[in-house]
Amino acid sequence: MKIVALAGGVGGAKLADGLAQVLGPGDLTIVVNTGDDFEHFGLHISPDLDTVCYTLAGLANPDTGWGRRDETWQAISSAAALGGPAWFHLGDRDLGTHLERTRLLDASLPLSKITADFCTAWGVRHAVLPMSDQPVRTIVKTDQGELAFQEYFVRQRCEPAVKGFEFRGASDAVAAPGVLDALERADAVVICPSNPWVSISPILAIPGVRDAVKRTPAVAVSPIIGGAAVRGPAAKMYAEMGISPSALAVAAQYQGLAQGFVLDSVDSELRGAVSRYMDCVLVTHTLMQSPHDRKRLAEDVLDFIGANFQ
Amino acid sequence: MKIVALAGGVGGAKLADGLAQVLGPGDLTIVVNTGDDFEHFGLHISPDLDTVCYTLAGLANPDTGWGRRDETWQAISSAAALGGPAWFHLGDRDLGTHLERTRLLDASLPLSKITADFCTAWGVRHAVLPMSDQPVRTIVKTDQGELAFQEYFVRQRCEPAVKGFEFRGASDAVAAPGVLDALERADAVVICPSNPWVSISPILAIPGVRDAVKRTPAVAVSPIIGGAAVRGPAAKMYAEMGISPSALAVAAQYQGLAQGFVLDSVDSELRGAVSRYMDCVLVTHTLMQSPHDRKRLAEDVLDFIGANFQ
Repeated sequence: MKIVALAGGVGGAKLADGLAQVLGPGDLTIVVNTGDDFEHFGLHISPDLDTVCYTLAGLANPDTGWGRRDETWQAISSAAALGGPAWFHLGDRDLGTHLERTRLLDASLPLSKITADFCTAWGVRHAVLPMSDQPVRTIVKTDQGELAFQEYFVRQRCEPAVKGFEFRGASDAVAAPGVLDALERADAVVICPSNPWVSISPILAIPGVRDAVKRTPAVAVSPIIGGAAVRGPAAKMYAEMGISPSALAVAAQYQGLAQGFVLDSVDSELRGAVSRYMDCVLVTHTLMQSPHDRKRLAEDVLDFIGANFQ
Repeated sequence: MKIVALAGGVGGAKLADGLAQVLGPGDLTIVVNTGDDFEHFGLHISPDLDTVCYTLAGLANPDTGWGRRDETWQAISSAAALGGPAWFHLGDRDLGTHLERTRLLDASLPLSKITADFCTAWGVRHAVLPMSDQPVRTIVKTDQGELAFQEYFVRQRCEPAVKGFEFRGASDAVAAPGVLDALERADAVVICPSNPWVSISPILAIPGVRDAVKRTPAVAVSPIIGGAAVRGPAAKMYAEMGISPSALAVAAQYQGLAQGFVLDSVDSELRGAVSRYMDCVLVTHTLMQSPHDRKRLAEDVLDFIGANFQ
């Protein structure tokens, strides 16, 4: 079974890792949000790509889910001592990734090629693709004005109230090499438990991606459990957009795009309501606290796809 | 006594530190070569400015003379694991300096202002000025073609034979704010024991600097002791330029620019020959192996200036 996973940060990376534990390298393509990418200290930083790659490589910090394990913080401390901004947590090992990515981008290599080469160096065998090689920048429209994503997410700790989103550059961007091909060949798409507003929507905003997903059976895993996001601002965003945060709201958002939906066991009472938006619903344990949890959820999702969409 | 010191890397930084131990902050201005500056991994690196500032701040690695004490190497190791170039030794703490400098240059602050702010943050009380805020790039002409300075110096370990030098951009550059003023006000100039070809010459190539030095009593300290450079390629460069490497060759090079010359005790037999090029000669111990050596040499040089040029 050939699967394309759409993923953002930590939650998406965990399910992508679970799928990679189950599927062979030829059977899984992970398409990653790059709307969070930004320039900082002159370096190009791709937070979601790094989180997915570090997770698949076994290099991720197991405590935070982002950044590198066994990390040190000498460079950012040194810059902060000079008055530099320390709000974005740049570990030393992580910095090496940004340094080399920036060097190669400056040498005109596309992000997709750089990502593939980094995966080879890190021993990641499954295809990890940025959604596009062109820059797309998620702008969060808030009661404090328009904020670049990392300004909103890290620097302002998601405190401003959200009024909307813009994926600047998306309409002029081209899906990275391999993205549309993988979607055309896929037996199913898995929409990972990432933030629908700012992790999955930017990917879908790349021309051709939404239509390609619509032509393929798709299953979404809810990032909202018991009305709260496992991590990040997804629930807060629903509330500020005037929508009661719940797995049901996620299902409504993905109506017409996904036909299958995966609910956490604590939300089993939503099964009936979700069925208004989806052809089939799986209720299972979706919280991924260990690498084994990732694999088990991936197996559940793949069994659900096999039972309903093959 | 108001002094301007011209300095390049490690040797110059040591004597500048000695002068700073003796002179008050209002009485010493250190003008530093920036011909070695380069861009690496998208960051702006100023090796000589950093060496001088780290040395004066007590942050320099006492074993190497360059880089930071208590340094770690996680970022460059991480970049190297991705195939990145590891020939330039970028420590993690040092990287923090490059990150913040690059950020501020990208925000259009001049290098001189950035350097002054860094000195304040590091507790350096004496004025450290880049020779210019405009980029000047030392090109080493070799039997293997033209090489950017760091390519020659670090990557190729000074192995190519030198045929000449170019300080690209120097003729269009402007001395950094304060440089010409400090020279006008100075009672004397100290040409530190830095490489005459690639550390002192670029400073002198900035319009107005050579003439200002010529109008001021100047004393040069030989970087060549016993026919060899204390460190770096100065002696090799003399030989490749067809000149027998010795303190006498340095004195000949500075004829017309400096009137006083400081010879190491091991070269005392050159005193008479050097007198052909210089008005007065001081023979003393010039090798600086400890911070105390730096102070003692600075005191010797200042006494020599006081006795001959006041």
